[in-house]
Amino acid sequence: MIRRQIDVRIRYRDTDQMGVVYHGVYLEFFETGRTELLRDLGMPYASIEKTGVLLPVLEYSTRMILPARYDDLVTVVTTIAERPGARLRIDYQIFNGDTLLVTGQTVHAFATLGTFRATRPPRAFLELIDAAWKEEE
Amino acid sequence: MIRRQIDVRIRYRDTDQMGVVYHGVYLEFFETGRTELLRDLGMPYASIEKTGVLLPVLEYSTRMILPARYDDLVTVVTTIAERPGARLRIDYQIFNGDTLLVTGQTVHAFATLGTFRATRPPRAFLELIDAAWKEEE
Amino acid sequence: MIRRQIDVRIRYRDTDQMGVVYHGVYLEFFETGRTELLRDLGMPYASIEKTGVLLPVLEYSTRMILPARYDDLVTVVTTIAERPGARLRIDYQIFNGDTLLVTGQTVHAFATLGTFRATRPPRAFLELIDAAWKEEE
Amino acid sequence: MIRRQIDVRIRYRDTDQMGVVYHGVYLEFFETGRTELLRDLGMPYASIEKTGVLLPVLEYSTRMILPARYDDLVTVVTTIAERPGARLRIDYQIFNGDTLLVTGQTVHAFATLGTFRATRPPRAFLELIDAAWKEEE
Repeated sequence: MIRRQIDVRIRYRDTDQMGVVYHGVYLEFFETGRTELLRDLGMPYASIEKTGVLLPVLEYSTRMILPARYDDLVTVVTTIAERPGARLRIDYQIFNGDTLLVTGQTVHAFATLGTFRATRPPRAFLELIDAAWKEEE
Repeated sequence: MIRRQIDVRIRYRDTDQMGVVYHGVYLEFFETGRTELLRDLGMPYASIEKTGVLLPVLEYSTRMILPARYDDLVTVVTTIAERPGARLRIDYQIFNGDTLLVTGQTVHAFATLGTFRATRPPRAFLELIDAAWKEEE
Repeated sequence: MIRRQIDVRIRYRDTDQMGVVYHGVYLEFFETGRTELLRDLGMPYASIEKTGVLLPVLEYSTRMILPARYDDLVTVVTTIAERPGARLRIDYQIFNGDTLLVTGQTVHAFATLGTFRATRPPRAFLELIDAAWKEEE
Repeated sequence: MIRRQIDVRIRYRDTDQMGVVYHGVYLEFFETGRTELLRDLGMPYASIEKTGVLLPVLEYSTRMILPARYDDLVTVVTTIAERPGARLRIDYQIFNGDTLLVTGQTVHAFATLGTFRATRPPRAFLELIDAAWKEEE
């Protein structure tokens, strides 16, 4: 299991007239979570794209337990709990302090830049995942 | 089963640097789909809010089969396939012509404006749903 | 002068916790306005891009007079009031019925796809503008 | 003159299919800039709203010199260069390292929560501005 966390500040832009964060915005926080997890592993997503491999989102799901509100500093906990095969699954939890607000997950394919055809995960990527996995154990 | 459809044009704003629609944007198309379904039933969401009842999104999930692209005119098909109880579940399909691009669903609570406490679906809302249901049968 | 108008429905996504449209969202309505003006002239923006020419936004400015609100059906009036030279300037007004809510303008360059270098406006584009101009006079 | 700076990471969500940041997104970075400036002065915007005063944006303008790109860590420099009167004007510059990418400004009113009527700037706000001004001199 690989797990990282990062804080995100809720902006006015993220709220709607219910006075809480618009439900779709949590996906943007998930994006920040997995981006910073990959950077922390030593392979920023931008560098994966430079090798010609994209990680498009195939599926996502989100459950809102309690709303995040304007100016909250929430914590996004991002977890890779399964070694990636043809697909990469990532789980997310958003907390305000100790209070769990939101859970979610995204499933990604590995695709070739340009053609969008399915491809294998880059070897360097798998090696980094494996190395990080061992460290966490 | 109640089903309505509406067309949505993909804007530049909806795309990302993969050259396709950003995955989170489909939730905004789902919003347009259910808003126009409710309007067509004779009860615009804005009028439900005026009675003091909100329909916050509790859960959503989305599966991307094929990407929508800039300037595509996609069709959002919105379906209420279960009579709402404490929760309202809505299903969505996004097509480009006959090609299915995306499927998804949202689950909504009925909540009191201000307190966000769970409440019953407004009677007038259920009556409209029932009336529309009969018509479709 | 070339002028076209189109209606846009305000979504929940477009609002913020002030209960009005977030100021930056008007730029997305301006995008819809100019996209539909170009389509109506017979040269959709997507077809301009296919010739290898982009129209990036160099500058924009917006003045909010009165707020647009959730579920308003606002009218975006888009005007090309100057024949384009090295730059294309477009003006916008957003109305709710007869009430002017917002005014704005965008200034665009013509740029080569890939390099982003400044280029001349495509001849076919200028001819369409000229033809539309004469019709309006 | 009061000046603060903060870094913002460009997300996939912020890009469009030109491969650069969508022009309207800079307004969200400006929002982050002024929010953190106010927090740093000791008066977070959320606490101003709690006193019943809003600072809606009346006008904004932005000039794009060079594009920001995915995963860039850009610096937003936010400046209050005029003591606020009936209106508050804020200036912004966005840099990538030493390279200036974007300039902009927003003009805000002071308005009463609920009625949106123009009101005076809160005295505590003006005192903080004055105190910060002296410190910078």
